[in-house]
Amino acid sequence: MDDKGISKAVIKRLPRYYRYLGDLMNNGVERISSSDLSKKMRVTASQIRQDLNNFGGFGQQGYGYNVRYLHTEISKILGLEEEHPMIIVGAGNLGQALANYVEFDKMGFRLVGIFDINPVLEGIGVRGIEIKMISDLPFFLKENNVEIATLTLPKNKAAEMAELLVNNGVKAIWNFAHLDLNVPEDVIVENVHLSESLMTLSYNLSKYKQEHSQDHE
Amino acid sequence: MDDKGISKAVIKRLPRYYRYLGDLMNNGVERISSSDLSKKMRVTASQIRQDLNNFGGFGQQGYGYNVRYLHTEISKILGLEEEHPMIIVGAGNLGQALANYVEFDKMGFRLVGIFDINPVLEGIGVRGIEIKMISDLPFFLKENNVEIATLTLPKNKAAEMAELLVNNGVKAIWNFAHLDLNVPEDVIVENVHLSESLMTLSYNLSKYKQEHSQDHE
Repeated sequence: MDDKGISKAVIKRLPRYYRYLGDLMNNGVERISSSDLSKKMRVTASQIRQDLNNFGGFGQQGYGYNVRYLHTEISKILGLEEEHPMIIVGAGNLGQALANYVEFDKMGFRLVGIFDINPVLEGIGVRGIEIKMISDLPFFLKENNVEIATLTLPKNKAAEMAELLVNNGVKAIWNFAHLDLNVPEDVIVENVHLSESLMTLSYNLSKYKQEHSQDHE
Repeated sequence: MDDKGISKAVIKRLPRYYRYLGDLMNNGVERISSSDLSKKMRVTASQIRQDLNNFGGFGQQGYGYNVRYLHTEISKILGLEEEHPMIIVGAGNLGQALANYVEFDKMGFRLVGIFDINPVLEGIGVRGIEIKMISDLPFFLKENNVEIATLTLPKNKAAEMAELLVNNGVKAIWNFAHLDLNVPEDVIVENVHLSESLMTLSYNLSKYKQEHSQDHE
């Protein structure tokens, strides 16, 4: 797999292509023209052609794109052809919600453990996996191959936990705690900052209201 | 409030400034120099000076920034000084997790209703709010001022629900369903696509592994 020629901007758009192609596959569509895909995705056909040309230019005049082929190629680039064993640290509402997303499993993010500090939660099963105590985590990480830790602990406990995870060999953190984790450069962090997303929404809403009220002045 | 002079790039960084300034306030810090803030936030001091100059250049040589002042100004720009009445549509694990985030309430996103289609959930209280049925939603929206709807229904029900929300006057949708909503231009949509976030993580992980394995060839 060589994606050195693919720009960051394209990479960023790949999950969306992957989703649309997956939907098409589920609907039994075998091929699609760039103009039809363009209408569905609301981007220009030339953008689509440029982006997908990175995958060998399999779009042909009069044939269009082979949906399954493209889906597979993008899946390879995104690392979805391999399994990524994952744990969830923080079995509160959000942690349990994420544990119940069967979709993630289907994409290769195989949930292998759920941990919390609250002894009340110990042994409770979430999708067939018993919640373990965080004190068991170092041993668990030693005995099991875990690539990704989903961090859904409160902010005040997250920094310490990230350190523990990294010290025990976790290579990637999917961070929902609302702080910037301080980890070594070779550890991958992907943040989901929900309150920042809400603030963006609120900003756009305020801006809209402001412009709208000006219209009526 | 006039933010016409503030670029989109700055706006995008504001929630992070807001968070750091809030943390400083909580720790009793009244003022901070751009270089100290720069170390904390791991951006250059000149970037910070440039960004915060948009707020009247209140950083002075030898004084630094007034933490509370800046926090308030940013909060105004982000529309956090007003209340935003919000409902959650979809009271599954994720919907309930979001309903339990007290932080959102503190930021002005006041939860006023939770709705689901599953009759088993009817009347269950989440943070003092009883889950209502979606059939009650049109009437509820007529009787109550609701600005934001958080959409945590499964993908296959989300499109129809977005239409119902928009037809009943909702102006902004915080969308967790994994599809692109088809709404009129004046409706604000902010997406949280969790699986796309995981794919980005997976891409970076694969890329790292690839580079790392090449080191050892």
